[in-house]
Amino acid sequence: MDGTLETRLPSLTKGVFGRLRQGASPEWEAYVGHPFVRGIADGTLRPEYFRRFLMQDYLYLLQYARVCALAIYKGDSVADMRAASATVSGLLDTELAMHLGYCSGWGLDEAALQAEPASIELLAYTGFMLDRAQAGDLLDLLAVLAACLVGYAEVGVRLADDPATVRHGNPYRSWIEMYSGPKYLGLAEAGIVRLNEMAEARGGEARFATLLRDFRTTVRLEASFWSGAMAEPPATGPAR
Amino acid sequence: MDGTLETRLPSLTKGVFGRLRQGASPEWEAYVGHPFVRGIADGTLRPEYFRRFLMQDYLYLLQYARVCALAIYKGDSVADMRAASATVSGLLDTELAMHLGYCSGWGLDEAALQAEPASIELLAYTGFMLDRAQAGDLLDLLAVLAACLVGYAEVGVRLADDPATVRHGNPYRSWIEMYSGPKYLGLAEAGIVRLNEMAEARGGEARFATLLRDFRTTVRLEASFWSGAMAEPPATGPAR
Amino acid sequence: MDGTLETRLPSLTKGVFGRLRQGASPEWEAYVGHPFVRGIADGTLRPEYFRRFLMQDYLYLLQYARVCALAIYKGDSVADMRAASATVSGLLDTELAMHLGYCSGWGLDEAALQAEPASIELLAYTGFMLDRAQAGDLLDLLAVLAACLVGYAEVGVRLADDPATVRHGNPYRSWIEMYSGPKYLGLAEAGIVRLNEMAEARGGEARFATLLRDFRTTVRLEASFWSGAMAEPPATGPAR
Amino acid sequence: MDGTLETRLPSLTKGVFGRLRQGASPEWEAYVGHPFVRGIADGTLRPEYFRRFLMQDYLYLLQYARVCALAIYKGDSVADMRAASATVSGLLDTELAMHLGYCSGWGLDEAALQAEPASIELLAYTGFMLDRAQAGDLLDLLAVLAACLVGYAEVGVRLADDPATVRHGNPYRSWIEMYSGPKYLGLAEAGIVRLNEMAEARGGEARFATLLRDFRTTVRLEASFWSGAMAEPPATGPAR
Repeated sequence: MDGTLETRLPSLTKGVFGRLRQGASPEWEAYVGHPFVRGIADGTLRPEYFRRFLMQDYLYLLQYARVCALAIYKGDSVADMRAASATVSGLLDTELAMHLGYCSGWGLDEAALQAEPASIELLAYTGFMLDRAQAGDLLDLLAVLAACLVGYAEVGVRLADDPATVRHGNPYRSWIEMYSGPKYLGLAEAGIVRLNEMAEARGGEARFATLLRDFRTTVRLEASFWSGAMAEPPATGPAR
Repeated sequence: MDGTLETRLPSLTKGVFGRLRQGASPEWEAYVGHPFVRGIADGTLRPEYFRRFLMQDYLYLLQYARVCALAIYKGDSVADMRAASATVSGLLDTELAMHLGYCSGWGLDEAALQAEPASIELLAYTGFMLDRAQAGDLLDLLAVLAACLVGYAEVGVRLADDPATVRHGNPYRSWIEMYSGPKYLGLAEAGIVRLNEMAEARGGEARFATLLRDFRTTVRLEASFWSGAMAEPPATGPAR
Repeated sequence: MDGTLETRLPSLTKGVFGRLRQGASPEWEAYVGHPFVRGIADGTLRPEYFRRFLMQDYLYLLQYARVCALAIYKGDSVADMRAASATVSGLLDTELAMHLGYCSGWGLDEAALQAEPASIELLAYTGFMLDRAQAGDLLDLLAVLAACLVGYAEVGVRLADDPATVRHGNPYRSWIEMYSGPKYLGLAEAGIVRLNEMAEARGGEARFATLLRDFRTTVRLEASFWSGAMAEPPATGPAR
Repeated sequence: MDGTLETRLPSLTKGVFGRLRQGASPEWEAYVGHPFVRGIADGTLRPEYFRRFLMQDYLYLLQYARVCALAIYKGDSVADMRAASATVSGLLDTELAMHLGYCSGWGLDEAALQAEPASIELLAYTGFMLDRAQAGDLLDLLAVLAACLVGYAEVGVRLADDPATVRHGNPYRSWIEMYSGPKYLGLAEAGIVRLNEMAEARGGEARFATLLRDFRTTVRLEASFWSGAMAEPPATGPAR
């Protein structure tokens, strides 16, 4: 395990999350080392792929917020409910606007984003998360959020710390800086800690096989999300 | 229809909400004119009844927030999701603290509130709301929130505008002022408008019989909530 | 622990269910030894109380079937789904008809049953079960079904095996025979076994405190269900 | 509109379903006239594509049964609950076994079916259905089931009635006969009638735009399901 990663994300290899990441390592490597990521690192990712990704990522944010809304509903204490509510309002009131601002820098306005049909890959990922979130308890729910939340932080740190990453003239530099910045890393670390605590409280040890099965699926769906953005011709997904 | 009420709550008799209130008028009168309300008006309500009510009302707030979390999840647009998220964070971050502050004026601290077992009447009301919210769509959900949201406003205005209401030395005066104040009335009016708009969008006319059936149940559960607080001996409800 | 009970319900004191029943023993005794049960045993229960119970019990069956439908949805394997589906179709296709037949012997036809408003006690119990079933996972769901499923078997066996139970001329004799008969005891024993297996698979040990909290609530709600049937004047519950 | 189709499926163009099918006609034609269907008609579909389809179709059946389980839970009357329960037990007790028998004729045993990872296309389709079913009411739920239920009947009738369809030596002949047979057509016709009745009862007219948006998505997901089976190389979907 890379020492730098653990310095920036101290809980990355700890607890049930550490075991999930370890248990899904082939899929995890295929995700955090995806060609999309390599294209970000050296700036060679085709801009139309990145734009396609940004449009689906906007739709993803909204569905992710719906999963977090279920976490408010499924919370067992005022503290749990407040934590989830802060995430939801953070997403809807702040991050969505930041995403829109970032997208406009790539020539995509809100109307374009809302007009974009959902891709098959987006529907597969968010449909799976929402289903596990409703059918399971708060631990199942937190487990299907982790691949996204933590994976982007690991990608950010890896790229930021890799001397081979291109800085000058790389159009994706600010994206790398966002996901390796202290604010995002703080969110990811807190997410790991919360998942590990919930696993303690709700039998994560005994339920590990099921948690791993679903976590592996989300990790594969992350990779497929990026593959979908790079597909030729563009995935012609359904209208929602 | 009382002209004063309509001045303060302009949509009270309009749209589908107006028809629900009209269709449930015997239950509605039993609710807004409940002995509990009359005891508030003249200050004769026994303080132990009011304290019992406050303790259950704290538990109610938390369950109400869970229903609103489902409204985020069930929202069909970013605007719907944001409106519901603002309600949830308002409840959990502001109103809960205000309720605690108010309760401490009645000698009830947070530990006492959290130790109080849920009454049968509380479980019946919140269980019914949560069930309708999950089994139905966003219109069903908004319809079961309305009896609480609007009814307290109507009670507030009725008491505030009634010359017979006792002001001097009435221990419930600030309670009356809260529910007849512009902030609460604004929330209630906005709730009616939103319900009426949702009814337009989601076939409220065709679904009126079902909506009325569930609305009437919530109105009766409001009255039973107050009756429970006044029961002798105190309802010995279950531990949650 | 009574040896006869364990002969008829071999798993009654075993596994997580055994610990739940033990952990909730004051509430459990208040439930299985309720005045309603004593009135059944010696035949002195007032018939109007029993009729009121039968009417609410009909509504209870329908809501219980809805919880079991969620068990199909939440099942993780074909076997789990089939088991829950068999329960649902058993309830809707067979037990409902048997209940109607039994009720008609007490002068209650289907129209009377469907016209009866839900009592506060019924709404509290079924609302709580449905909420735990949706918010939690399959283990939470099975745990809130157990008080009903197993408690009636324990009541049946206790009464059937008690020499003090009145047989001759007891209008409730067939009710006692139904719940102490091999068919019902088989269902209850299978329910315990299934709950214990699910607890093994989904971390019941680590989650025991939460499971007990919710189980205790359902046990109290069982007692309140019977108290409601015996209340004077009859509980005037909401219309649904 | 083809007269033969209406003879065999009398409600195909009637009511809200008829309007949905009409409103989504480009997507509907791409679905019922998909290359997969043409390959079935003339027997030229590559057997490995068909096997891949059969394996995903097995997983689809299980998820479809979960949506129908939610229909029991969301049903408002005993009749609604019974109808949905009959569908679920039909699927789990009869159709699953028939599907397995059919698959074994193609060299696929139950172990192979259960070992097959879910494709992205399967996850997208079933995740979308389950989400709409939980977030909406019974009308939203029935609307997302219709593309599958009715579309296969229309495909069956079209192929059975088309003189160009190859009979002799066509390995897919029994598949065509199954979906054009009176039993399946009866199910599809009943499904249309039920959807149209539910639309009457729950404001389908006012909600048409939303219903159409979701219906169109399911129709596109049907086509993508078949495209996925024909993709080269096989879609390497996630493990669940």
